[in-house]
Amino acid sequence: MVITSEKNEFIKNIKKLSDKKYRYEKKLFFVEGKNSVFEALKSGFEIVHLLLAEDFNVDFQIERDKIVFVDEKVFKKISDTVAPQMIMAVIKMPKWEVNDIVKEGGFYVILDEVQDPGNVGTIIRSADAFNVDGIFTINNTVDIYNPKVLRSTMGSIFHLPVVNDVEPSKLFDVLKRNGIRILSTSLKAEKYIYDFDISKNAALIFGNESRGVNKYLDGFIDDSFKIPMDGMAESLNVSVAASICLYESERQRLIK
Amino acid sequence: MVITSEKNEFIKNIKKLSDKKYRYEKKLFFVEGKNSVFEALKSGFEIVHLLLAEDFNVDFQIERDKIVFVDEKVFKKISDTVAPQMIMAVIKMPKWEVNDIVKEGGFYVILDEVQDPGNVGTIIRSADAFNVDGIFTINNTVDIYNPKVLRSTMGSIFHLPVVNDVEPSKLFDVLKRNGIRILSTSLKAEKYIYDFDISKNAALIFGNESRGVNKYLDGFIDDSFKIPMDGMAESLNVSVAASICLYESERQRLIK
Repeated sequence: MVITSEKNEFIKNIKKLSDKKYRYEKKLFFVEGKNSVFEALKSGFEIVHLLLAEDFNVDFQIERDKIVFVDEKVFKKISDTVAPQMIMAVIKMPKWEVNDIVKEGGFYVILDEVQDPGNVGTIIRSADAFNVDGIFTINNTVDIYNPKVLRSTMGSIFHLPVVNDVEPSKLFDVLKRNGIRILSTSLKAEKYIYDFDISKNAALIFGNESRGVNKYLDGFIDDSFKIPMDGMAESLNVSVAASICLYESERQRLIK
Repeated sequence: MVITSEKNEFIKNIKKLSDKKYRYEKKLFFVEGKNSVFEALKSGFEIVHLLLAEDFNVDFQIERDKIVFVDEKVFKKISDTVAPQMIMAVIKMPKWEVNDIVKEGGFYVILDEVQDPGNVGTIIRSADAFNVDGIFTINNTVDIYNPKVLRSTMGSIFHLPVVNDVEPSKLFDVLKRNGIRILSTSLKAEKYIYDFDISKNAALIFGNESRGVNKYLDGFIDDSFKIPMDGMAESLNVSVAASICLYESERQRLIK
């Protein structure tokens, strides 16, 4: 059977997952496109439904009754993109626990009120590339299950723990108990990033696109370093700044 | 006098600058927002018109007859953003010559069919931060004067030469005559970027978001290096990859 009506209850409920409140009520999110869906299937995430166009001819490693066929018109209705790839997975949100993720010697990223979905998704993708042990978002950072965030992660959301909307003082407490330094980038810092050991035992915090890290968090930050910039630009895009730090951390681990 | 009608010919022509063809016909582009407009005013670029809301109370260093007052409703009509900042400059495109920009010892970026405006703008911003001597776009890279590109540059478009749609063989010829190596990133390269001298005498080429650098350019590329990635992500966002290379180049210059 193929669902051909946008008014189908099942379809209407999937479309509602574009809304953050509904997502968290149902503890479900969706990803679109071959790449993301394949990464989801390979991961330990629990797939609830796999939506396919009828002519999608691939043998998926998934229980038959989870596959739902949907026609092109309906796909266009629920998709977050202009040209949907006719493949979508509805997935259960994992239950990450900060305590289980943070370990001595680890390397983490904290996102503090980062607002742009593309920035958050790109940071998750870079964190995956450079072996970050976990990402925590705090203070109204855009939801990690926002379709635009997920699209920018290019499937990396399934490769490392990304924990949404953590209570900051609890997070900092767990990090400190495990000997993890909380570090930020600052234009006023004295040390350059490449003279600063960020190979491990560190959580790097990145803040809002215009305002940076929230001032009230200053007391929690152990130290700061700067990215050298001797051109005229006053700052870097936050996903670029974060990715440079993650690369530098990887470089330091590799040359050791 | 304040322009209050969207149907005003002057306003209609500015709105048309959102269209690439019209931009190049007129050799004009526009930037919006305080930051970009102030950077434009400080630069050597020729401002043709400065559009302001009537209550914009700043003393601009510009000939009085270039200032045009426009009401909020009209601003909303011509603006590329949802919440326009009520300040806009119409600017003459500079006439950059590849021959004047490329010098022995220089450090350049080439963008080959990079399609996303945010990526191109972010690369221009990073190139400004890390002292790149010039950027050249080839093969249908998104137009550098596209409003979305300009917004992502955060004013950096006014800080370094960015040359649109250069003829590739001519560009490579000028680079080679000046002893500039043409280098690319490649997952298959043997050398890691941090073991590879990219401090100067180099033009780094970055390609399309899904396909990478056009295959037909292989013969022009002198050497390749790789960015270390030992996580599960297969690749990095192109603006991230480019920015990491530019940071690494800056790091190498600074530690020398």
